Amino acid sequence: MDALRDGFAGMDGPGVQRLERHACFGGFQDVYRHRSGALDCDMTVGVYFPPRAAVAPCPVLYWLSGLTCTEQNFITKAGAQRYAAGHGLVLVAPDTSPRGDGVADEDRYDLGKGAGFYVDATQAPWSRHYRMHDYVARELPAWIESHPAVAGDARAISGHSMGGHGALVMALRNPGRYRSVSAFSPIVAPSRVPWGELAFATYFGADRAAWREWDASELVAAAAERLPLLVDQGDADEFLATQLRPDLLREACAAAGHPLTLRMQPGYDHSYYFISSFIGEHVAWHAAALRA
Amino acid sequence: MDALRDGFAGMDGPGVQRLERHACFGGFQDVYRHRSGALDCDMTVGVYFPPRAAVAPCPVLYWLSGLTCTEQNFITKAGAQRYAAGHGLVLVAPDTSPRGDGVADEDRYDLGKGAGFYVDATQAPWSRHYRMHDYVARELPAWIESHPAVAGDARAISGHSMGGHGALVMALRNPGRYRSVSAFSPIVAPSRVPWGELAFATYFGADRAAWREWDASELVAAAAERLPLLVDQGDADEFLATQLRPDLLREACAAAGHPLTLRMQPGYDHSYYFISSFIGEHVAWHAAALRA
Repeated sequence: MDALRDGFAGMDGPGVQRLERHACFGGFQDVYRHRSGALDCDMTVGVYFPPRAAVAPCPVLYWLSGLTCTEQNFITKAGAQRYAAGHGLVLVAPDTSPRGDGVADEDRYDLGKGAGFYVDATQAPWSRHYRMHDYVARELPAWIESHPAVAGDARAISGHSMGGHGALVMALRNPGRYRSVSAFSPIVAPSRVPWGELAFATYFGADRAAWREWDASELVAAAAERLPLLVDQGDADEFLATQLRPDLLREACAAAGHPLTLRMQPGYDHSYYFISSFIGEHVAWHAAALRA
Repeated sequence: MDALRDGFAGMDGPGVQRLERHACFGGFQDVYRHRSGALDCDMTVGVYFPPRAAVAPCPVLYWLSGLTCTEQNFITKAGAQRYAAGHGLVLVAPDTSPRGDGVADEDRYDLGKGAGFYVDATQAPWSRHYRMHDYVARELPAWIESHPAVAGDARAISGHSMGGHGALVMALRNPGRYRSVSAFSPIVAPSRVPWGELAFATYFGADRAAWREWDASELVAAAAERLPLLVDQGDADEFLATQLRPDLLREACAAAGHPLTLRMQPGYDHSYYFISSFIGEHVAWHAAALRA
């Protein structure tokens, strides 16, 4: 704790502003604002440094949040810091879309700001800022992993709902980039459910062929790497049958021979109470892959 | 989990409305609205039932939150359910003041709604609704502990900031009522700090003699029961020197021979990141007293 308090600078640097710092489980929960070239706007990111980061570089677990969220939801509600402290993992939780006055938006919760869907949009006006895939896969880790407290060669990814889709697609599109991937309540087949159809039609246009490259249930068929997928899904989730459809991922993985552990959790809903109940198991699972 | 999901009714009953139910660590995080006679208004209360509550009555840890909070802050941010599930404790977290259109208020964060200070006000217009001590010490437990899943003879209390003051005063004013008491960042001497002086002058009037009965640092001198006090306080807390003053409790306990464990936690601030880091130790400490 003293090493952290007295000597640990976090991610400060040119163009980076530290908005928050809180001691937490012997480490620090920070929030930063930095300039993103990929998104052409400022972005906020939560970064948790475990106590071990004061003495040795630590691997990173990236977390992608769901519709309407910012970087705050995961860092205030999931309770993941306790487990990250124990395993010596850095947690990185970015905002869910580009933000700012000049960023295209719609007056609804499932499109535009807070609903970036972790894709690189091709349709105007979205294509200028909505490049969350490029940001999460390339720009964000290049910045985070340049820090001496962060191990540059070991990263994992997870997320919830829209962010669960994001985590699966990030891993499937970028073979070799992640040691492990997991998801809570993910949108596994966005091309075939209302949330995804609206977002993809908006960000990519009407040609559904282009959508396949951003749909986990399509990507598993041709995945260059058989990275095992860990998915937890509550069976009392209000979006289960209409938007999430884990059955479609199960079918696609079975057809492709892609390893999947899909756990239907009885009684659990779509909330952070569900995430908090199982995030410890996910962090332990990622830690095992990252330390291997 | 199946026992809980299929057979566990929670606190439903006449005059009680269940607003939320979420599976959480094998139990349920519920939120209720009920009519309070003590406060003459409807109140919302968070109740966490651990898995063990499906098969045996469980003792209760009451939690009192701080200024500006509702029942939501503790149940969404503290991460206490994990520990309560492990120890088989019910967690009860009420709102921090009376609410509603007819309830007196001021347009500031530290007086009126969200700032009940867990006292029974004597000055109009506050005396009509602001009776949080009566509610927390008598009416709330009478309701909660009438439920068959709740053990009626074993209760503990804790809280944060204004709620830390509330927990200490509840225990000191009601000897024999609590098996254990603890506090995070409590206002230990409200008669001698700005938050407390304003609230007490408003709720009790200018006569400071009346304030002493609601001030933990005064109450320890004549406490009829030497219940040990456990207090955690961050040394980077922005309110430490002006509002919290744990030194005044230390002096009072030393003078009175009242047992106090005051832990100054290096680097921690006033936030729920601090509470979440140590709530596990508090829950374990209360569980040991409740199961003794």
